[in-house]
Amino acid sequence: MANLDWPGLGRDAVGRLRKMRVPAFLEPYLPCLEWGRRYNSDTATNDGIAALVVMIMLIPQSLAYAMLAGLPPEMGLYASILPLIGYALFGTSNTLAVGPVAVVSLMTAAAIGQLGLTSPDQIVLAAITLAFLSGIFLLALGVFKLGFLANFLSHPVIAGFMTASVLIIAASQFRHLLGIQAHGHSLFEIVGSLFTHLSETNVLTLLLGMSAIAFLYWVRSDLKRLLIANGWQPRAAGIVSKAGPFGAVIITTLLTWLFGLDDYGVAIVGTIPTGFPPLSAPSFDPALWSDLVGSAILISIIGFLESISVAQTLAAKRRQRIVPDQELIGLGVANLTSAASGGYPVTGGFSRSVVNFDAGAETPAAGVYTAIGIAISTLALTPLLFFLPKATLAAIIVVAVLSLVDFSVLTRTWSYSKTDFTAVAATILTTLWLGVEVGISVGAAVSIGLFLYKTSRPHMAEVGLVPGTEHFRNIGRVRVITSLEILTLRVDESLYFANARFLEDSVYNRVADQPELQHVILMCSAVNEIDSSALESLEEMNRRLLSSGVKLHLSEVKGPVMDRLKRAHFLDDLTGMVFLSQFQAATTLDPTLAERAAVAARIREVWAGPVPSGMDAS
Amino acid sequence: MANLDWPGLGRDAVGRLRKMRVPAFLEPYLPCLEWGRRYNSDTATNDGIAALVVMIMLIPQSLAYAMLAGLPPEMGLYASILPLIGYALFGTSNTLAVGPVAVVSLMTAAAIGQLGLTSPDQIVLAAITLAFLSGIFLLALGVFKLGFLANFLSHPVIAGFMTASVLIIAASQFRHLLGIQAHGHSLFEIVGSLFTHLSETNVLTLLLGMSAIAFLYWVRSDLKRLLIANGWQPRAAGIVSKAGPFGAVIITTLLTWLFGLDDYGVAIVGTIPTGFPPLSAPSFDPALWSDLVGSAILISIIGFLESISVAQTLAAKRRQRIVPDQELIGLGVANLTSAASGGYPVTGGFSRSVVNFDAGAETPAAGVYTAIGIAISTLALTPLLFFLPKATLAAIIVVAVLSLVDFSVLTRTWSYSKTDFTAVAATILTTLWLGVEVGISVGAAVSIGLFLYKTSRPHMAEVGLVPGTEHFRNIGRVRVITSLEILTLRVDESLYFANARFLEDSVYNRVADQPELQHVILMCSAVNEIDSSALESLEEMNRRLLSSGVKLHLSEVKGPVMDRLKRAHFLDDLTGMVFLSQFQAATTLDPTLAERAAVAARIREVWAGPVPSGMDAS
Repeated sequence: MANLDWPGLGRDAVGRLRKMRVPAFLEPYLPCLEWGRRYNSDTATNDGIAALVVMIMLIPQSLAYAMLAGLPPEMGLYASILPLIGYALFGTSNTLAVGPVAVVSLMTAAAIGQLGLTSPDQIVLAAITLAFLSGIFLLALGVFKLGFLANFLSHPVIAGFMTASVLIIAASQFRHLLGIQAHGHSLFEIVGSLFTHLSETNVLTLLLGMSAIAFLYWVRSDLKRLLIANGWQPRAAGIVSKAGPFGAVIITTLLTWLFGLDDYGVAIVGTIPTGFPPLSAPSFDPALWSDLVGSAILISIIGFLESISVAQTLAAKRRQRIVPDQELIGLGVANLTSAASGGYPVTGGFSRSVVNFDAGAETPAAGVYTAIGIAISTLALTPLLFFLPKATLAAIIVVAVLSLVDFSVLTRTWSYSKTDFTAVAATILTTLWLGVEVGISVGAAVSIGLFLYKTSRPHMAEVGLVPGTEHFRNIGRVRVITSLEILTLRVDESLYFANARFLEDSVYNRVADQPELQHVILMCSAVNEIDSSALESLEEMNRRLLSSGVKLHLSEVKGPVMDRLKRAHFLDDLTGMVFLSQFQAATTLDPTLAERAAVAARIREVWAGPVPSGMDAS
Repeated sequence: MANLDWPGLGRDAVGRLRKMRVPAFLEPYLPCLEWGRRYNSDTATNDGIAALVVMIMLIPQSLAYAMLAGLPPEMGLYASILPLIGYALFGTSNTLAVGPVAVVSLMTAAAIGQLGLTSPDQIVLAAITLAFLSGIFLLALGVFKLGFLANFLSHPVIAGFMTASVLIIAASQFRHLLGIQAHGHSLFEIVGSLFTHLSETNVLTLLLGMSAIAFLYWVRSDLKRLLIANGWQPRAAGIVSKAGPFGAVIITTLLTWLFGLDDYGVAIVGTIPTGFPPLSAPSFDPALWSDLVGSAILISIIGFLESISVAQTLAAKRRQRIVPDQELIGLGVANLTSAASGGYPVTGGFSRSVVNFDAGAETPAAGVYTAIGIAISTLALTPLLFFLPKATLAAIIVVAVLSLVDFSVLTRTWSYSKTDFTAVAATILTTLWLGVEVGISVGAAVSIGLFLYKTSRPHMAEVGLVPGTEHFRNIGRVRVITSLEILTLRVDESLYFANARFLEDSVYNRVADQPELQHVILMCSAVNEIDSSALESLEEMNRRLLSSGVKLHLSEVKGPVMDRLKRAHFLDDLTGMVFLSQFQAATTLDPTLAERAAVAARIREVWAGPVPSGMDAS
């Protein structure tokens, strides 16, 4: 049989997995049952190679991101072991690589920083608690199918937030590149602090850091081409060019050890405990929970959005499916296992997942193999990292994140929608100025607030008949046929409490301007809902128009809305009628309309020829 | 000349007002200039009579509401003098009677109660500061024309809030009616506290209070009829029947004084300082401001909504106009003058304004005369109120507010819209359970949240051609003509960030179910906006459908939306076309459609006769 020589799992384990039966209601929650049953040695080989590549990338990244989060380096490693296995069992993406990521690490630093803790033990406990709360929240969202809540962060707000976060991350790493002290959670705080301490720059650290950055950029941009030119296979060359961070770690660690650079003030990582991740438990202090729960929610949502977007992008390339609510469960379990094994909040990483995909990962088992590899490293590798300069880690972070800076969202939204632009600009500015938590909250609030504002002042167009059709369009945009006795308003929004009064005022104002008026038709083709407040406004409008001798009619009312209006007995009191179509309404109330329209259409045809059928709607 | 014998203002004053010229940009902010210039002695007589009636009603009410607010009684009187003049100068309603009102007094009590103050001076200062902050907020809303913000409280939420508040108010007065101690700001707290102290009931107080309630109900329901039956003029009888509270005050004060009831434990009002309102200034302590600012905002919005609704109701009866943003300025000035003269937050009262209207008030000058009358009372009347029992004031409050209890909003919204019902029920329950501030905030949040939720999962209908028309309707509701190769989805909502992904998923799911499909038409008659996030989704959909060999078309795109799509170059990449009307789209993509529809219409006509033109849209 092909699966006799499974790496990583013995034959018995495979057999057991194949035969495993779980209650049917649990099956949808365990996607691993599905891919596990068709697992074979080919898949295993591909997954194993991908796992090796990801591991080489993840080890330096996990150390670096732990430093970014203000945590001991081993927490980055711990967060790269059990969480990967947790996700592999519950997640739906075949190629998502879970672990510490830059933005979540930055948000972790901000969340813990605001607690004002000084004891390292307390900081570690807070990070573990944050992972735990984040895991609980993600799991709850997934189980109760509330993943749609994440949709309330608009694409531009997320793009702006990411760009601003990345700038903060890069700025925060300059202290390690310069070998100075600096602190703060907003760009301005950090830059100010950097300038204060600039004179303390350690030149050797700076040289080392800048060399590392130059090396990483060179590996990234030129190494692959160079290797291919020297006869390497493109795939192998591609994999080696992803090992730049690993190479930088080895080279700078060796240099520091050989020349004793730490004696000249180059900050090094120092002792990293050797051994498997410890069992750990979060704090259950209610005060700490209430301090962290807001941060945990933000971290969860941002982490989920980053993760789901990369998972869906990669899945689409292979026509695979991602189930968002199940992804929430997968990430929730990953964070809970992180909290149980001395880690901190994790999510699916962008660059890492792309590498995993490119290296040929076929199932989530690749994540399991990566985890095993990193677990072995914590046993063997950590003593070798004693002389690893912090500047190298900072260089790795800076190079990894700066490619994500993208201000084009500002120009794109500026030309497309000023509303979206306002939300993006507010997000970027508040994130840079007041930090990540305020930034993303303000971004979400502004975009939702602007949406509400727009719906509260709906667009209303007076419409007339387009000659030669049964179609009614805005009199300000298209040459249409109208009647003096009839005002037809097309309301371009659902009617609800926030715009009910606005509709009333608009109708009264127009009625006052048109003394010949006998009929007002509200064309409801865009009215998807009329709530109780709007119903009261319609009743009031019906009464008031009656007292001015004007009848109120409705046209093109949608089925569900009509059902409601019937139930509320609004139609019993309505002075006018309800018409299926606006064309019926207008031709019934003004019998000359159809004839006039036919004449107009004929005139136009005589002058300009027949109207083409695929007409532009401008 | 008719205006020689003006009461209240000397001849010189009138002359000066007539000749007064202010800079043109200020004119719209001073409605008093407009009515002042056409003021004459007839108007003055009518205003004077109305003022007298309102004064008789307002004196006991202002004492009672100050007690409800937990403030010294004279603050109620002070809040009924200068604020009335402030409103008269800046407000646009001719009949609104401003002063202390029940719900705002309750909210004042809740706002100050949460500060935990014990010193009476501090409590008074906090109330003055609350009026000041409320005034500033109202003025800012008015000047920046932000009155529309109040529309975000839906009608049912306001109705539910009022009913719940009134229950709390009535419950809170039972301690005065029973002569016991009780406290709390939610219904459950108050009722619990009442039961704890029930055994301490003072029977004499209870008798007095219940008699006062019975008397007030009798005056209200039977006195007017009785007087008319005895030959009184209906108008005079009506005015006397509004003086019930005044009568109750006189009778119970006399009884208490004559029989020394206070010696038997009947709580009395005691010393009320004699004299005009003092000059006062708010506290500028930032800590107090930050504690009160949330309450001030809620009080302002609730006060404004109560005031504007009565003002508009009364104005409509006489075909007069109310300018909401100018009303905000009027109420803002009223609250600032209240803060400057030892008062507390005020707004337009419902019953009082109706009385003012019925008694014949013609201009805001009636408010000025009321203010002058109350100012004189503070000089002469206050010593006479020493023996006024608190139980009488409680009886006045209970009778005034209980008529406002209206649970019918629950049944109405239940049958019309479960969403509105949810918002009302949440408002009533949280108000009763957690107090007015939490209640109204939760009500607003729930109604906005539910609106957002609904728009995030828009209704999408597959539509087909109604035979004999150019009209397309839901295939699930109307018998329509469709094509196998064409899927037409009518999206019943603007496309924005919260529903962009939902649209994508819906389209992919339907495409997967219909293998013959070659064209997807999105019918955009109800799409009023496509934001950047939704644009990205459309671009993605266009790409993915292309890879399945399906073309994406749009129909009935509105002008403003079309302009945007052009600007974003979406149309350059669109695989299909944009059609002016859905009829064009369907007949162009399926040339057999029109013919099949004509046959269907003919068949129907043969069986059922011609379609009537004013057709119901169900």
